[in-house]
Amino acid sequence: MRVPFEILRDEFYRVLASVGFADERAMLCARLFAENQRDGVYSHGLNRFPGFVAGLKSKQINFQAQPEKIESFGALERWDGKMGVGLVNAYVCMQRATELAEAHGIGCVGLSNTNHWMRGGAYALQAAEAGYIGICWTNTTRLMPPWGSAEKKIGNNPMAIAVPRKEGHILLDMAMSQYSNGKLEVLQLQGKALPLPGGYDTKGELTVDPGDILDSKRALPIGYWKGSGLALVLDTMASIISGGQATHEIGKQNSEYAVSQVYIAINATGLMGQAILDETVAAIIDDFHTAAPLDENESVRYPGEGMLKTRQESLEKGVLVDETQWQALLEMH
Amino acid sequence: MRVPFEILRDEFYRVLASVGFADERAMLCARLFAENQRDGVYSHGLNRFPGFVAGLKSKQINFQAQPEKIESFGALERWDGKMGVGLVNAYVCMQRATELAEAHGIGCVGLSNTNHWMRGGAYALQAAEAGYIGICWTNTTRLMPPWGSAEKKIGNNPMAIAVPRKEGHILLDMAMSQYSNGKLEVLQLQGKALPLPGGYDTKGELTVDPGDILDSKRALPIGYWKGSGLALVLDTMASIISGGQATHEIGKQNSEYAVSQVYIAINATGLMGQAILDETVAAIIDDFHTAAPLDENESVRYPGEGMLKTRQESLEKGVLVDETQWQALLEMH
Repeated sequence: MRVPFEILRDEFYRVLASVGFADERAMLCARLFAENQRDGVYSHGLNRFPGFVAGLKSKQINFQAQPEKIESFGALERWDGKMGVGLVNAYVCMQRATELAEAHGIGCVGLSNTNHWMRGGAYALQAAEAGYIGICWTNTTRLMPPWGSAEKKIGNNPMAIAVPRKEGHILLDMAMSQYSNGKLEVLQLQGKALPLPGGYDTKGELTVDPGDILDSKRALPIGYWKGSGLALVLDTMASIISGGQATHEIGKQNSEYAVSQVYIAINATGLMGQAILDETVAAIIDDFHTAAPLDENESVRYPGEGMLKTRQESLEKGVLVDETQWQALLEMH
Repeated sequence: MRVPFEILRDEFYRVLASVGFADERAMLCARLFAENQRDGVYSHGLNRFPGFVAGLKSKQINFQAQPEKIESFGALERWDGKMGVGLVNAYVCMQRATELAEAHGIGCVGLSNTNHWMRGGAYALQAAEAGYIGICWTNTTRLMPPWGSAEKKIGNNPMAIAVPRKEGHILLDMAMSQYSNGKLEVLQLQGKALPLPGGYDTKGELTVDPGDILDSKRALPIGYWKGSGLALVLDTMASIISGGQATHEIGKQNSEYAVSQVYIAINATGLMGQAILDETVAAIIDDFHTAAPLDENESVRYPGEGMLKTRQESLEKGVLVDETQWQALLEMH
């Protein structure tokens, strides 16, 4: 079923207010959850909201905490997330990165002691919307075996990059695992195969069978050894830049909290001027779109293009929600 | 056969001097070519040197040009490579990025109108050696089809990231294609299969047969659609930050020159202090090394670990060179 965006957002806010989280930061969270759902990021929208509220209630997420700047090095700052709301901390830090980029051309914020940001792409888009290139990544708990091992040891460390574009920003939002464990579990339940090999079976053969991959625990990093290496490097950089925990420390906890993140903004509009920026990006995307599709019923899409279509559909027809999840939201208080 | 590092480096310099390129910049190039070979990067060492010298002779590479700062935005600068020597331009720009990072915490240099840098990892390592996180990437000519197409349209846009580590820097150096065309061609000639699927055959099936991939022209981006998206985003950012050409413009030329690159340095030592930096990175790598290997004869290696072993072997026993290539070098003048 479909629900108007504003209704969905306001319903999220109603529930947040019911647990005492009732200020402009709660409105931001309600908007971000609704936007994630609106943009088709169903893995980090309505489905995650009950867990988020449970975290607020149990005080694992301290919604009274405000992120705080703890060190400043010019264009680079370190902020302490104070175990507050991950979405708020992320928004504040990307906002701060754009302010630093306004002053210095580039700005970087390392954020420690924060909680799950839900969708990294939201904060990269926030920068792009303001005319900046936005780059951000987070570390996670142990979710993936490094290349050459079957032991979960490294994070899947999602990274998002957005580039401002007049007709709709370019947005890459990707974890370093080819498929999430959540995706593997869903497909296994549905008895479906992966569209492409996503890991190894217990015999050491690449497979599209989600159950075989869950059995072997060998989900595939993107690009085999390359994504494994990139995940390790992103974790190491997040820990150094923020001064916060690395994956091996997060993995010692009984759940994932106090993660480390990095926010980088680059003043794209300031570097080029709006007109040349628009022209440069348009020429790249126009050329990209001339690539002949393999399947004549499909188009070759730049990162974020599919998301934009979903968003437009959501705004025209209402945001797609799972009826059970929607009913559960209406009943939350 | 093996040749002492200094002999190899000096032989490179002798040849450069013989074409009139005989200053400290030529010494830098000779050292970088020798170091690439020393570190086992045989794809961008001795084998590429004759082509590099041909470029100097034909004046496609102008070895008299000096890179020049054209715009400054604080922690971010734009430099014009003046179609000079790619290795020199890269070295100068990463050096400049570390100076900016010293002053601002983070530094970023966009470089336009430059030529092939040979091995991106060299400049990331240069930053790490000085105590900075080094991140750099380049765009290229059209080398790869975007996801969903068989038409070569995007670059493979190699990216390198190095993190300083006392016992040997972490170094990730990767193109966005799973395997280079050069690698596919070499294996096809040898009649060998790829170790892992590296593209599609003409029937649209994933394959390890290099010839089938060259026939279909569908080499695999890392992580399927993810690497395709990352390649596009890296190209777009390189073009915006440097103000230089994007892949679609480079692709209109009859060969690859006047590419765009980005250099980012982060003052890791300054942020943490040497002792805590060393401790932080050591703890991450120590934990990583506890991952049980799938093959008991192999170890689970962090990015750059294998390279470091090759380097040590090269310094102990001499640098491995192809005898024909070495003879050809000795005969160059």
